[in-house]
Parts: sequence; structure tokens; C-alpha cells
Amino acid sequence: MKNYHLTPEQFREEGKKIIDWIADYYENIEKYPVLSQVEPGEIKASLPEQPPQKGEPFSQIMHDLDEKIMSGITHWQSPNFYGYFPSNTSFPSILGDLVSSGLGVQGMIWATSPAATELETRVLDWLAEMMDMPEKFKSTSTGGGVIQDTASTSALTAVIAARERATKYESNKTGVRQKLVAYVSSQTHSSLEKAIKMAGIGSENLRMIDVDDQFAMRPEMLQKQIQEDKKNGLLPFFVCATIGTTSSTAMDPVREIGEICRAENCWLHVDAAMAGTAMACPEFRHLKDGVELADSYCFNPHKWMFTNLDCDVFWVANRNELINTFSILPEYLKNKATETGAVFDYRDWHVQLGRRFRSLKLWFVIRHYGAEGLQFHIRKHVEMAQNFASWVRESDDFEIVVEPQINLVCFRHKSDDDFNMKLMNTVNETGKAFFTHTKLNNRVVLRMSIGQTHTEERHVKETWQLIKATAEHLLKNRKAKN
Amino acid sequence: MKNYHLTPEQFREEGKKIIDWIADYYENIEKYPVLSQVEPGEIKASLPEQPPQKGEPFSQIMHDLDEKIMSGITHWQSPNFYGYFPSNTSFPSILGDLVSSGLGVQGMIWATSPAATELETRVLDWLAEMMDMPEKFKSTSTGGGVIQDTASTSALTAVIAARERATKYESNKTGVRQKLVAYVSSQTHSSLEKAIKMAGIGSENLRMIDVDDQFAMRPEMLQKQIQEDKKNGLLPFFVCATIGTTSSTAMDPVREIGEICRAENCWLHVDAAMAGTAMACPEFRHLKDGVELADSYCFNPHKWMFTNLDCDVFWVANRNELINTFSILPEYLKNKATETGAVFDYRDWHVQLGRRFRSLKLWFVIRHYGAEGLQFHIRKHVEMAQNFASWVRESDDFEIVVEPQINLVCFRHKSDDDFNMKLMNTVNETGKAFFTHTKLNNRVVLRMSIGQTHTEERHVKETWQLIKATAEHLLKNRKAKN
Ligand SMILES: Cc1ncc(COP(=O)(O)O)c(C=O)c1O
Ligand SMILES: Cc1ncc(COP(=O)(O)O)c(C=O)c1O
Repeated sequence: MKNYHLTPEQFREEGKKIIDWIADYYENIEKYPVLSQVEPGEIKASLPEQPPQKGEPFSQIMHDLDEKIMSGITHWQSPNFYGYFPSNTSFPSILGDLVSSGLGVQGMIWATSPAATELETRVLDWLAEMMDMPEKFKSTSTGGGVIQDTASTSALTAVIAARERATKYESNKTGVRQKLVAYVSSQTHSSLEKAIKMAGIGSENLRMIDVDDQFAMRPEMLQKQIQEDKKNGLLPFFVCATIGTTSSTAMDPVREIGEICRAENCWLHVDAAMAGTAMACPEFRHLKDGVELADSYCFNPHKWMFTNLDCDVFWVANRNELINTFSILPEYLKNKATETGAVFDYRDWHVQLGRRFRSLKLWFVIRHYGAEGLQFHIRKHVEMAQNFASWVRESDDFEIVVEPQINLVCFRHKSDDDFNMKLMNTVNETGKAFFTHTKLNNRVVLRMSIGQTHTEERHVKETWQLIKATAEHLLKNRKAKN
Repeated sequence: MKNYHLTPEQFREEGKKIIDWIADYYENIEKYPVLSQVEPGEIKASLPEQPPQKGEPFSQIMHDLDEKIMSGITHWQSPNFYGYFPSNTSFPSILGDLVSSGLGVQGMIWATSPAATELETRVLDWLAEMMDMPEKFKSTSTGGGVIQDTASTSALTAVIAARERATKYESNKTGVRQKLVAYVSSQTHSSLEKAIKMAGIGSENLRMIDVDDQFAMRPEMLQKQIQEDKKNGLLPFFVCATIGTTSSTAMDPVREIGEICRAENCWLHVDAAMAGTAMACPEFRHLKDGVELADSYCFNPHKWMFTNLDCDVFWVANRNELINTFSILPEYLKNKATETGAVFDYRDWHVQLGRRFRSLKLWFVIRHYGAEGLQFHIRKHVEMAQNFASWVRESDDFEIVVEPQINLVCFRHKSDDDFNMKLMNTVNETGKAFFTHTKLNNRVVLRMSIGQTHTEERHVKETWQLIKATAEHLLKNRKAKN
């Protein structure tokens, strides 16, 4: 009888073809233009307006994937992708996630798949150990880790837990009534402002503290602002320090900020979304000095740790503060294990109820690479960035804007902003490499973010040569016009 | 040189083994106890306390998956899984998600992979068409759809957008200052209460409206409560109507509730997380009568539409209300396509920034099954549930608690609550089937939720026989004891 499902045999066949398709993709990835060249609406127009009434053969779907979808892909996994921040994945991660899709478990509480909860707890304890995080972040102490989908959601979770702690768990009941104030730097990721809005605090109650010439938060300005707010009858409750800001990988002084938070009874959230992966290497750990003063901390394996989206690691110092904020227990989820308190129910550690078995991919990555393999690649990325920076320094036409601390180089052509934008767009339009810009001190800055899984020295070198040649060519044209 | 990566060749080899592993899993899935039988802490204790310093061979990871993880899995994909609600997946979905992991794109904005945005827009328009949703939910009109991770996040998104509309986008700035009140029924999913807390409204400002004998919200009680709140100077702003409550699949009268919302200027969110899939069949569409009055609507393909977590479809009537609420535009994300307004940047439609290419799996599912194949399976599930209900009705010892509307049967043994709990636990401990309970009118109710991809008539029949036999056995033992 026709039942429309693929049989296991058909799945074996189609699945293996897709495995080959992915392997082929990586073998040929340099042939694609890194930045998709399509126009708005082009992909959509190529897809039928009406849904299919009848099922279609798998070969047709794969054909359309090649013919209709691929031209609309910007290739984040290309070794020549240097845009924004890395979002690297790796073969072990892809396979770990495949197992997760295959098992299809919903790990909302311990009882709905104990392994999903316990592997997550174990793997996040491993990471805390591997990255020399404070003991209190471990499940064996007062805290623990949970996988969130994104750093944005971690920020929201931290803000809300902080709000509840500051209001003695009253605002969950009454709504936000106190005059709460939060603090970030002018370089903090926009997800913090978004979180402050979503949590009902309001952007007027978010202070953007000034930064120093390295774009790091100035703790004395934080201190001053807190005093002023207190004088005005406001209640400071939350500070976010960033290890590795998005624009320029600036490093906020966590210890000094943390000490202020301790004294002022503010929740300290540390956002290490991209740079956090570097903590796997001892030589970068000074960047997290003072992290034992944090109430929460997050970093994204889905940025720089070879693990595909979604995967953000969120640690807290005191898990009860999370659970008291987010816990719900409807009758239909009651069970013995939960009642005895012997288990974690991760649903109570975050926004969502349903949860995918995300720790599998992380487990695959950590076991496949080992601490050693991860360190190898992190160091290689940092070294390539440092080399790129040295080429910029040696050139007459370009300059370094901030000294690169790890794997991001902020630089610019010594010409004006328009020229830099033009240069960037021209390079990106070749499809040979892709990088993006930001503004620092109101000037356009070009960013080479080096962290893709398959980026090698030769890619970085060729991209530098392309940038230089393009700049020379544009300058020549400009002169010819004048 | 050793670079720790799997080569594409190794990936082909290991990947194909995992495809076979998954096919084997489905071929043998009935041999596993549906509910994991492990004790709290057992899985964690089986995993090393220390992270691996050196990488390990893939064979070792797969070995540990079998030996250490599998016993801690509760098999949501088993044809004998009848717990909670379905969280079904299918081979096409697993493969679509594999392609997504392989491509590893980060679709936060249009420019970072146009196909990720445009395929999502197209596929959600298809679904709106397939399910006969109001035109305004389509991207070609004022609204549009976006894939959220979960229905919980959709609820939060709806609450926050409603809060902003009601306060003229002021509370994003000032924090929640107005006396907002929201309305749900006593049967509404707990994620709504969680959302109201997270958004800074406070659970005191959430009214739980009474339900009728079918556990559906009583619109006249809603009307009364709104009037009372207005008299007390409060501002009603948000109502959630549920199509298919979690406990008993009760159907709130969307039209009557929607008319009240129109008159009172409240945002109407419709939560059809589980039951929404039924709208693919014309014969169930009366359950959504009045949905054109909704401001937002969500349902979870990751529950009943053969699509693995995370996948919640969220439609809005007016996308500008979402974008005005959630939009942020830091310099480093500025680009031409965004500036001209020619594209959707889905980051501005939800909480998170980073986003996975989730529409691929939905596209694979819809194209593989076609509307016809989806209808076939939905109808089959409903039919099996109706058959189960008829067996309950025919038995002397059991009774139906509420008439099943679609695929969930709420029933109980005519004995007491303790007996019902004992019966459920005893059946679940056999590992042969798994179902769960709830409480309705303060009495324990057993729930057979029928919606797993591979559930056939014979599974349901055997489970019914097991339940009956177990009840008889327990009764006999009880009598022997007395
Ligand atoms: C009616 C209803 N709404 C919301 C949810 C929450 O779903 P999710 O896990 O996607 O947040 C569920 C099930 O868990 C549900 O049945
Ligand atoms: C420092 C920092 N925080 C937060 C984020 C947001 O990450 P996500 O997409 O995981 O929310 C980013 C990057 O986007 C980031 O660089």
C-alpha cells in the first residue's frame, strides 16, 4: 500500500547521495562566489507560487537544490569567507547533528530523554574544565551550563534572571515596577539592547558606557554612572561585559567591572560569543581574568568552535536563580524524577519548552578534535590574523585600526570612507573572497575575520593580494577620471 | 601534515555509516523500550569526568553512542510513543536538515544568504495556501511568516509585539509602565504565562478565563473580565486562543474571541502548536473558523508535520508591527539590500540574531509528501485515535473523558486516580508503549496522543490490549491483597 514515506532502503540510498553531495560541496567550495550574486526576489521567483499537491521524487528536490537554491547561498563555510564573524562547522558536527535529527528526541525535561539532559550537563562541565572556567559554573557546584540557541537568547535569559533576582522575584508577578537600570558599553552587541527592551526594562534605562581607545569599557565611567543613577533613585541591576566585541574584538576589563558589580549588587553577564572559543588555549585566558565574578557567561561554539548553528553555551554561577525565574510545571509534565529533584529539567533554564538534542554535535566535536585539535586550529586562525596584520602594517597604503587581539583584523585603506566601501564591495563582487565593514570612531573600518574551518595561509595571502590589487586598480581609475 | 579534520573521504565513509545507523535504528526501533529505563545520573556516570585531551577515532564515538547513550533515550520516534504530543520527524526532514547542516549558512539577514530568507518566505506562503489561511498572513499581503524555534518563542514574540502596539512602541523605550492585562484560558499552554512574565507584564496581570465542559474558553467570561479590568483602569492588550490545548485538544472558539478582540483592540494570538497541522485537511478547517481575526498564529511542524525540531511556523497579519518591535541595525550589518527595503531581514522578526537554514527541511517535507501525502497521514492518525476511542467506549472498565476532536484520546479507567497512575506507570515500565497523563476537573486522565510517523493500526491495537490486560492484572492483584 502506498504510504508516501521513504522506506529505510530509500533513505539509505538518498542519504548516502546527500553525504556525497556535501563532500562534493566541500571539495568544490572554492569554485562558488563566496557572496551570493543574486538580486532581491530572484530565488523566490524561481520557486513555484503554489505548493505541490502531489509528492515529488527525491531526485527532483535535489535537482532544484542545485539549480535554484545554490546560487542564493553566501558560502559561510568557504575558506575565503571573512565576513562578520565565523560561523564555522565541521564534518564531526554535521554528523553529530545528523544523529540528533535521526533520533528525533525532544529533551524538554530529563524524563523525556535522560541522555539528552545528562550528556549536555557532562559536555558543558567538560568545556568548563577545558577552558579553566570557575568551579561554580559546573553542575557539580552551585551552577551549571545549558545550551541555548543563540547568544541573543542567553542575553535575554541573563537579563530576565537578573531582573528577578534584583526584584526578589516580584516582577515575574507584578510586572516591572522598579526603576531598573542596566549597563553595557557603546560597543556591546545589539542583542543586549534588544534583550533590555524585550524584558520590559526599556532602552531609556540602558546606559551605554564610554570606551577607551581600544574600544573597551571604561570601568571608572561605569562606576560614575552607577553612582549617578543611584542618586536619582534608580536601581542598577545588570552589567554586560564583552570578551571580544563584534566590531573590533575589544576586551572589556572583566575583573574591574566584576568588582564594581559585586560592590553594587549587579548581575554580571559576560558575553564571549565569538572570542570565548579562544579560552581553550591557556595563552588567551588572561582575556577572561576576573570571570569568577560573573553571574552568567556565554560563548558560541556555533561561531568559532566548529559546531553548527544553533549552539550557544550558557553558564551560570547559581542555577537556582535561573530555575526560580523560568520554572513552570504543568500537570502533564509531572514525573517522579522531577519531583525528587534528582535531575535537571532544562526547560526551566531557558525561554523555550521543546528542545533538540544539541549536545550530541558538541560531543562529537570535542571527542573528535580533543582539546589538542581545537587548540591547534584556534592558534592557526590567530596566527593567520597576525600575519595578515603584519602585511597591512608593511604596506604603504593601508593601516591597522586596532591591534588585533586574536583572529579579527580591523584595517583600512588610508584613503577616505567612500574608497574603503568601494574597495570592499568591489572585492566582494568578484566572488573570490568576502569581508565586511564596521565603523569605529565614526570611520569606516574593514574587517578580516579569520575563523573558517578550512581557511589556510594561502587563502589569506591571496585575499590580501586581491585587496591590494583592487585598491591599486581603483586608485588608478580614480586618477584617470580626475 | 596532521590537521585533525576529517577529510571529505573520511566524511563520506563515516557519513554513510551513520545513514545506515539511522536506517537500522528505524528498522529496529520497536525492540527498544519506548521509555528509557535508566535512573537519574546513570548516563552521566558512564561518561568520563574529564574532557579528552586528544582526539578519538570516530568508531569509538559511535561505539559509545550505542553503549552509553542509547539506553538513556526515550524513543519519541517509536510507533508506540503516545506520550505528551507527537514530535514526529521523517526521512525527508532528516535529510533536509542534513543539507542545512552541510551548507552551514547563517541566515540572520537576507544578504547573509538570500536563499535562506527567500525559500522560507516561499515555503510559509505555500503552507498558508495549503491550510487555507487568511491572505493577510502571506508575504504578498501585509503579513508573512517566519520560522521560530518553538511555539514558546512565538508566544513571547506575539506578547512583546502586542505590548508595543498597545503602548504605541513606548514600552520598548520606557519599560512597561502601563497597566497591561492579558487573557488566556485555564487550559492554555504554560508558555503563555512564561511569556507574560518574561515580557515584564507580570503573572498578576494575566487572567485565566474559565472553560466550558469541553475545556474551551468561554467567550462571555472573557468579555466580562475585560469589562471589569477596564473599569479598574487597566489596559487589556492581548488574548491567546488555542486550537488544540495541550491537555485535551480543546478548541477555543476563535471567531467569538476574535470579535471581542476587535472590539476591545486586543492582539489575538492563536496557538495551534499541535493541532495546526490538521488544517492541511479541509474537513478540520472549521476548527480555525474566525482565524482571519487573528494578529498572529503559530503551529509546530515539529510536532505533527513530520519535521524535526526546531520548527515552529509563526504568521502575522501585519509584519510592520513585528519589525517595529524587534528591529535593530548595527553598522556591521548594514547593506544595500536592507537599505532599499527590497528584502526581509528575518532577524527583525524574532528574538534571536543568528539563524539556521530551517526552511530546507520543511521544503523537503512538503515536496516529498505533497499536500496529498500529508493529508493521508493526518487522516490516518485521526482515524486511529477515533478507533481507539471506540474501543474505550465499548469496554466496561474504561471511559472517554472528552470526545476526541482529532488525534488525542483522553480516557480513564473507571477506578480511582491512584489506580490510573499505577496503570500508566506499569504499562510504561514494560517498555512496550509509552503514554502520559494530565488532570481535567482535578481528576487524573490518561492520554493517548497518536501522531508518530510510523504508528500503524496494529500498534494502537496492541497498546490498547496491553492497557486492558494490565488493568485486569492490577485489579486482580488488588483484590487478592484485600
Ligand atoms: C498548545 C501548545 N502550545 C505550545 C506548546 C509548546 O511548544 P514548544 O515546545 O514548541 O514551545 C505546546 C506543546 O508543548 C502545546 O501543546
Ligand atoms: C559579541 C557578540 N554577542 C552576541 C552575538 C549574537 O550572537 P547570536 O547570533 O548567537 O545571538 C554576536 C554575533 O552575532 C557577537 O559577536
